[in-house]
Amino acid sequence: MQSKLVGVLGGVGPMATVYFEQMVLELTEASCDQEHLNMLVYNHAAIPDRTAFLLGESKRSPLFDMAQDAQMLARAGCDFLVLPCNTAHFFHEHIQNAVSIPLLNIIEETVKVCAARGARRIGVLATAGTVVTDTYGLVSRRFGLESVYPDAATQKQVMAVIYDRIKAGKPVRAKEMAALYARMREDDCDAIVLGCTELSVAHRDLELQAAHPDVVDSLETLARRTIEYAGKKLRAG
Amino acid sequence: MQSKLVGVLGGVGPMATVYFEQMVLELTEASCDQEHLNMLVYNHAAIPDRTAFLLGESKRSPLFDMAQDAQMLARAGCDFLVLPCNTAHFFHEHIQNAVSIPLLNIIEETVKVCAARGARRIGVLATAGTVVTDTYGLVSRRFGLESVYPDAATQKQVMAVIYDRIKAGKPVRAKEMAALYARMREDDCDAIVLGCTELSVAHRDLELQAAHPDVVDSLETLARRTIEYAGKKLRAG
Repeated sequence: MQSKLVGVLGGVGPMATVYFEQMVLELTEASCDQEHLNMLVYNHAAIPDRTAFLLGESKRSPLFDMAQDAQMLARAGCDFLVLPCNTAHFFHEHIQNAVSIPLLNIIEETVKVCAARGARRIGVLATAGTVVTDTYGLVSRRFGLESVYPDAATQKQVMAVIYDRIKAGKPVRAKEMAALYARMREDDCDAIVLGCTELSVAHRDLELQAAHPDVVDSLETLARRTIEYAGKKLRAG
Repeated sequence: MQSKLVGVLGGVGPMATVYFEQMVLELTEASCDQEHLNMLVYNHAAIPDRTAFLLGESKRSPLFDMAQDAQMLARAGCDFLVLPCNTAHFFHEHIQNAVSIPLLNIIEETVKVCAARGARRIGVLATAGTVVTDTYGLVSRRFGLESVYPDAATQKQVMAVIYDRIKAGKPVRAKEMAALYARMREDDCDAIVLGCTELSVAHRDLELQAAHPDVVDSLETLARRTIEYAGKKLRAG
């Protein structure tokens, strides 16, 4: 079977896009180049900041760029699209409406993984843009789950990690990430969602996966779903 | 100034393409997403193996796929192209002739760096496809430099590292890489070129840069040139 060409609506942010591609490659069962997926990736860094728009701090909407990018990728021959950014999923329906090929939904896929693990109360670590639009809450309720967000002080720390460190190319310490996870556990969360792909980058760089099995990484979840949807095999283990 | 959109002819191999993107991001001076380059990347994994064709082991030429990909990227609005694969540069002129936008040349850029460092005799670690076509020799002579390749036994080790390990998703040891570098130094090389982007991946993963300052990485060289050519700033240091 010919595998499907995946179009990646990227650049939101640029490093998370590259990590997404790397995860897809690492999670694919392949012993040579040709067994990997074909991906057409628009790492469009110039797209206006999503959270600044959603918080009303900027009038520049990222929607039109993303809808145009989706159309360009569809015209170029992509069979389906993915958008490795949680915050931008506030616009999911609008981008989906701009094209006739499917756009996978990172929020839905992540909530489904939490549900399959038997979670009931999800602690969502995400940008202020995702929090204010309650993107996870809307989807969680459809699956009978509850989504909660950090208190204001913790949310400020989450934003500092995302914007002042990862997006600025500066290091994050494992202790800082672990403190965020601990805070959500204190709030009785039985699953912690990395609901911002920049946090996925830090989690992975610091190799925190084994020590925090209750953490569900939205970027990894989307990578796995992308491989399956493209018709390729997931690497065992 | 609006920066130029770079088109990446990728998939040869898929992991080297992702490392190239990552290098570009890491080497760009940027404090937020929007200061990064815009890149349109076709990670086209299904392209037939370059070395197998050049060695006459396969009749399936990668040229037509690469020329079509170049045209697709040009139509999508790219201002210039890069091809993060040394072996495929045997076809550079043909791909360049298929489009009206520039295709940077990884071999030329790498040889220029060696020349600027005052090197006279370059030891080239590359695929058998690059060796048999003498792609580095042709360019080196234009710059008054000499290119040499490993002896047959060492070349076999180079190919094992590239095909049986990196392309197959298996680990390489620092000792193996260092042994290849030592072999070229014994042959009086004053610069050692990582003339296969898969070797760049291993060199970088193993953090061998500081211990081997005489090694010139073709992938990193192309990443730096891409940033400059796109009109963005190189990160200091």
